[in-house]
Amino acid sequence: MNSLETSFRTKPYFRSNKRGNLIILSGPSGVGKTTLREGLQKRIPDLRFSVSWTTRPQRPGEIMGQDYRFVSKKQFEEKMKADGFLEWARVHNEYYGTPKAPILRWMGKGEDVLLDIDIQGAKQVKKQLPESIGIIILPPSKKELQKRLIHRQTEPPSKIRIRLKNAETEIGSKGRFDYAVTNQEIRSAVDDLETIIKAARLRVKK
Amino acid sequence: MNSLETSFRTKPYFRSNKRGNLIILSGPSGVGKTTLREGLQKRIPDLRFSVSWTTRPQRPGEIMGQDYRFVSKKQFEEKMKADGFLEWARVHNEYYGTPKAPILRWMGKGEDVLLDIDIQGAKQVKKQLPESIGIIILPPSKKELQKRLIHRQTEPPSKIRIRLKNAETEIGSKGRFDYAVTNQEIRSAVDDLETIIKAARLRVKK
Repeated sequence: MNSLETSFRTKPYFRSNKRGNLIILSGPSGVGKTTLREGLQKRIPDLRFSVSWTTRPQRPGEIMGQDYRFVSKKQFEEKMKADGFLEWARVHNEYYGTPKAPILRWMGKGEDVLLDIDIQGAKQVKKQLPESIGIIILPPSKKELQKRLIHRQTEPPSKIRIRLKNAETEIGSKGRFDYAVTNQEIRSAVDDLETIIKAARLRVKK
Repeated sequence: MNSLETSFRTKPYFRSNKRGNLIILSGPSGVGKTTLREGLQKRIPDLRFSVSWTTRPQRPGEIMGQDYRFVSKKQFEEKMKADGFLEWARVHNEYYGTPKAPILRWMGKGEDVLLDIDIQGAKQVKKQLPESIGIIILPPSKKELQKRLIHRQTEPPSKIRIRLKNAETEIGSKGRFDYAVTNQEIRSAVDDLETIIKAARLRVKK
């Protein structure tokens, strides 16, 4: 062993960052957020997904603990009082919330966590954890979003009109997000999401 | 055409950002920066590459306007006085500088620009244009960097020792960069660089 070899330690310069990334996926209703989220989870299986809590009734086809964790109002309010949510909201007399503990635990172990929440919730989380990565999913155009909402045929025109008005406001807050992905074509939009998360894993943590 | 269709314009929500990204590729001597940069340019051919100016003599094999723009001291100093450099430095009595005009022109046209500069220059550019994307290339380990510098056989051990000391200091400024890419294997490091630039193209400009 010469003097050159002994004068430098073999410690790696760069090891994967200890703390995981929090990735917030958001966007207006009807934009195809759930489809993209599921596509992304297939591409990056080690991504932790945070399931929201809600007091609204379980709908046919929904799976407890996968789509939502369905809880009573009492359970929800107790968790609220214990500061157990990263963000929560009351919509049409029902609660929706993002539980804090599992997210912080996963991030602490260096695991990346994915949130699928609405624009209001996304803003709240970003305010609380500014280092989180906010992604807004956008429709290719207003026309296209309208078409998608009409084709769903789950709501009357009056409700669709409200949803479109909301979408317009929500998209107006694009500047609060770090990334914008246009859902023109599912596969290409999932590619974009995968790219963002892979890049996040290369970021230097401050 | 019904009332729903007329009430929304067809303007796209999101068009590609007008202003291009400035990507700063940096890293210690011997880390393989040039090889990675060339690999990246093949992957993303529309990436503009900013050629540095220098007053040092052209070496055999170097191409004017590709490796460097070789200029006289007078030419360099005139450009300096005209505030024509984004950053410049004097090393061993020779000048090196990054010309400002082409970079700002390309960015203004929405084109992404790649800089391949040393750590000191990278810090200066980042200070002037904080929205630029700083990437530091790291060796897998200090041991490995040492091996690479010795295998080059272009310099005596005493010089290698200085280079390694400098590398250690330079790597210590990792926190000034946005991304860190470890050059363990060329192909995978180029993948990482490609990912960072593709993600940058999805960023919401503030």
